Amino acid sequence: MTRIAVDAMGGDHAPYEIVAGAVWAAQEYGVGLELVGKVDEIQNVLDDVKNKGFLTDKGRAGRKHRIKIDYTKLDLKLTPASEVIEMGEAVGQAIRKKKDSSIVKSVEAVATGSSDAVVAAGSTGAAMASSLFGLGRLPGIDRPAIAATLPTMDKPIVVIDAGANSNSTPEMLHQFAVMGATFSKNVLGVENPRIGVLNIGEEAGKGNELAKNTFKLLEECKDRINFIGNIEGKELYSNICDVVVCDGFVGNVALKVTEGTGSVLFKMIKHEFKSDFIGMILGWLAKPFFRRIYSRINYEEFGGALLLGVKGITIISHGRSKAYAIKNAVRVAKEAVESGVNEKIAKFYEE
Amino acid sequence: MTRIAVDAMGGDHAPYEIVAGAVWAAQEYGVGLELVGKVDEIQNVLDDVKNKGFLTDKGRAGRKHRIKIDYTKLDLKLTPASEVIEMGEAVGQAIRKKKDSSIVKSVEAVATGSSDAVVAAGSTGAAMASSLFGLGRLPGIDRPAIAATLPTMDKPIVVIDAGANSNSTPEMLHQFAVMGATFSKNVLGVENPRIGVLNIGEEAGKGNELAKNTFKLLEECKDRINFIGNIEGKELYSNICDVVVCDGFVGNVALKVTEGTGSVLFKMIKHEFKSDFIGMILGWLAKPFFRRIYSRINYEEFGGALLLGVKGITIISHGRSKAYAIKNAVRVAKEAVESGVNEKIAKFYEE
Repeated sequence: MTRIAVDAMGGDHAPYEIVAGAVWAAQEYGVGLELVGKVDEIQNVLDDVKNKGFLTDKGRAGRKHRIKIDYTKLDLKLTPASEVIEMGEAVGQAIRKKKDSSIVKSVEAVATGSSDAVVAAGSTGAAMASSLFGLGRLPGIDRPAIAATLPTMDKPIVVIDAGANSNSTPEMLHQFAVMGATFSKNVLGVENPRIGVLNIGEEAGKGNELAKNTFKLLEECKDRINFIGNIEGKELYSNICDVVVCDGFVGNVALKVTEGTGSVLFKMIKHEFKSDFIGMILGWLAKPFFRRIYSRINYEEFGGALLLGVKGITIISHGRSKAYAIKNAVRVAKEAVESGVNEKIAKFYEE
Repeated sequence: MTRIAVDAMGGDHAPYEIVAGAVWAAQEYGVGLELVGKVDEIQNVLDDVKNKGFLTDKGRAGRKHRIKIDYTKLDLKLTPASEVIEMGEAVGQAIRKKKDSSIVKSVEAVATGSSDAVVAAGSTGAAMASSLFGLGRLPGIDRPAIAATLPTMDKPIVVIDAGANSNSTPEMLHQFAVMGATFSKNVLGVENPRIGVLNIGEEAGKGNELAKNTFKLLEECKDRINFIGNIEGKELYSNICDVVVCDGFVGNVALKVTEGTGSVLFKMIKHEFKSDFIGMILGWLAKPFFRRIYSRINYEEFGGALLLGVKGITIISHGRSKAYAIKNAVRVAKEAVESGVNEKIAKFYEE
């Protein structure tokens, strides 16, 4: 049975929503759990779920969801960790000093083989650094990268790197392409995924040195990578490619601009519909439609981004994650473990 | 009277929509025009408008608009240019070889003082290069940058650089901040505009070397620039700052991702409302509301981006511009000329 270590103390809504989401996933997907953190706090949440027979998810547009839990069927393991790395702490120092922190201990659980993957909703920097130092790099990979999955009209796309490295080289972007393609194929089930380089124009000579040299490098190994060329920001969600390769600074800006644009558009829609009486009625009637759209683009559906390139699976969830997002993060962790994505990345470099 | 040179041959809908938009602006804002390009083609459009007494704008969600024109009141000047620089041509070579192209001649009109500003909807690279070589740089400015104006819930923001430079230095970004602030204050009327650096986190130590060093540089001259620190992509449209400073590669990706996100969201909304009968009726009833939202975020409202840092005003319009967008571009050109934005940028460096 696949076992997922969950940093129970990380994220804005820890520990309740994190533990609840993990328990929900354990029941729904039949995975074992290793809950890492302050044991009494975790136990409080578990007792609450056990006594009530259900857990509460406050996610998804603020609605409360009650999910029935058969506590007797769960396979739980509690691992104590007395410290927590807070958001904004200097990461390098924190992971060296706080050896008994929940994130360091969660990664340790994978390193020692007690669990198969980590789900972490706390400091992204701490999750990356402790994974890199605790698990080590995959053969062939210089720097791990964050692979984020995003919705489009059709099938989801992968953006890699979504923020791990802000001074990338063409060689690193080549490795991101290999990792992204392997992930897309084996975890998302995309046949022969199309790889594009995020650039400011479609032509080969466009963009900065990094984009130009990455283009050349990927052109050279078209026999092993389905490279389709440059793609522009406006085409990100138009399904012309499955994996978008970029430096982490650019990828992070792109993803956060998407978030910001979505949020301001929905605010404008709300504001416009509330501007008169007819609009309010129409808006109220149209709620189910807007809710369906919202659920399609909701980051909670994807649970979290994968840190690829380390010897293990680390899922980095949004700091705002509630139970529903964590449930999906555990699902992604399970799928990633069972797909053997890491073994397949390593194999690419053996051949 | 302010006179605006318009490259009548540039853009997907040249010459009709370009000339029509310019004529529309001339009537609405009382500016003189210098229409540059193939004289017979331009004359054809003018004759059409003159004979009919109106022009047609196909912009704004595909609806046709008839705008009455009193041809006798227009102040028109036609300047011949026999060549056109096409999209995708190698820019450096093109502006050297095609000395009689409409864009080179339009810029020349400003350089010789025959017009006060240029509006160009053709190749962005050609507009930038011919402006740089034809007009020269403002004192204190190493590299011109593109300032794009974008809608938010409240007042518009400026993103600079939106794509002119893809290998910026901190010193360049400092200059972009000065130019952006001067534009925001004098053209958009923002009192003491707040300047932010686009970054992947809010803290001072975040991001790549460029972002970190730009932060330091701007911190040092807070007495002259209202620097508020780093801003993340998700805050771009949340009105926490008025001018967003970034490298042109990142800025271009950010703007195009905004475009792509908006477009996919509206597609999803359309798709969802069309999924059943009730949705179709609701969608039909809600059309005026969606149209109002669309007009708020429509790039046509802003007409085009400004190339700042050259000795003259160049407005770079979207290649897809129709009459309505060109009309607004001419308005922005007029406002920029009359605001004396360039003199004020130069003055910053004299003090």
